[in-house]
Amino acid sequence: MRFDIITVLPGLLESPFAHSILQRAQKKGLSEIVVHNLRDYSLNKHKNVDDYPFGGGSGMVMSIEPFAACIEKLKGEREYDEVIFMTPDGETLNQSIANHLSTKKNIIILCGHYKGIDQRIRDIFVTREISIGDYVLSGGELPAAVLVDAIVRLIPGVLSDETSALSDSFQGDLLDAPVYTRPAEWRGIKVPDILISGNKAKIEEWRYEQSLERTRQRRPDLLK
Amino acid sequence: MRFDIITVLPGLLESPFAHSILQRAQKKGLSEIVVHNLRDYSLNKHKNVDDYPFGGGSGMVMSIEPFAACIEKLKGEREYDEVIFMTPDGETLNQSIANHLSTKKNIIILCGHYKGIDQRIRDIFVTREISIGDYVLSGGELPAAVLVDAIVRLIPGVLSDETSALSDSFQGDLLDAPVYTRPAEWRGIKVPDILISGNKAKIEEWRYEQSLERTRQRRPDLLK
Repeated sequence: MRFDIITVLPGLLESPFAHSILQRAQKKGLSEIVVHNLRDYSLNKHKNVDDYPFGGGSGMVMSIEPFAACIEKLKGEREYDEVIFMTPDGETLNQSIANHLSTKKNIIILCGHYKGIDQRIRDIFVTREISIGDYVLSGGELPAAVLVDAIVRLIPGVLSDETSALSDSFQGDLLDAPVYTRPAEWRGIKVPDILISGNKAKIEEWRYEQSLERTRQRRPDLLK
Repeated sequence: MRFDIITVLPGLLESPFAHSILQRAQKKGLSEIVVHNLRDYSLNKHKNVDDYPFGGGSGMVMSIEPFAACIEKLKGEREYDEVIFMTPDGETLNQSIANHLSTKKNIIILCGHYKGIDQRIRDIFVTREISIGDYVLSGGELPAAVLVDAIVRLIPGVLSDETSALSDSFQGDLLDAPVYTRPAEWRGIKVPDILISGNKAKIEEWRYEQSLERTRQRRPDLLK
């Protein structure tokens, strides 16, 4: 699966894509993440990609031409399933959207910055607008990294232990049960006896009850 | 405001904190972001920070000792307002939580990885658990970067134009109105006439109506 990310801050995305699961997925050839510097598509010699908003007001607005040039170049090279714009007023990302997108082949992701992007980019090119949550960030770069991470780990073969992804929080509509590892006792605080009982069936039962209880307490909305 | 972030992947966080607003806030002395390598606090020579889960099952669990050692060292150096654990089963981050946290002085952020962290770390040290949304990621590093970004931009003096943060989506419970910049016409598609009318009052009215309409269509829940 290929991701083309268009941003004014390509450097910001360097380290997130060079570590952990995203690095491994690229090394295994299971995903390709290409970051494009929007400034390379600027039409003027100052490499500007933004301008003052029509109608006045604070903040700068990202211009249509550089995005159009980059998107149209990419579309000339291959077909894209989606052109996604990361924006706080998009649909809120959840596991089901991540699952769905993980079945796609080529995705373009636009990172906004400053006050926003010219509405015409959204009207003409964008097929889907996604928010990672109800909070404002400096730009769309971290949200793009979050989206790519959420998707890539679902691609078959990326995680070494496939059951690991399937048993994650949200995949089964229940939050995870508490987990413990050695030492069995730390400063007098012990792990629950059941977990060292060796009784597999009882342990599974306990975990299910804990998951259910934690979900009831923290996220009753998930149980509906 | 100071952030101490504890992670097994300090390298992953390098570029997000070295660009844009987070870089500027640090240069201006308005925020300090210190990333700690959890492995430096491992008790064994292999620098292990995780172990098999009690009770069996897939995935590794992060051990209590390295986190305890790092947190206790930091707490010996200064007082902390919160020890936050980034986890998908925490309370969901929103703008009001970000606003609240931006008034704090010192915050520790723990990044989980693998299958999770020993529950005792959460029980003993963690004062607040935060999720950035209902989706599963490879680790808590990107969520930590998102949280820091959401908070730092609210610290007075960080954004060059303070009204910029105040007029953002979610600060006023309404989504932003569409924005446009030059050219006024692009491939035959014009910006709305009102925005080039020069009538400030009418423009404000139009923007408010657009904000309201967009919120009604996309996020009616915000209007309640």
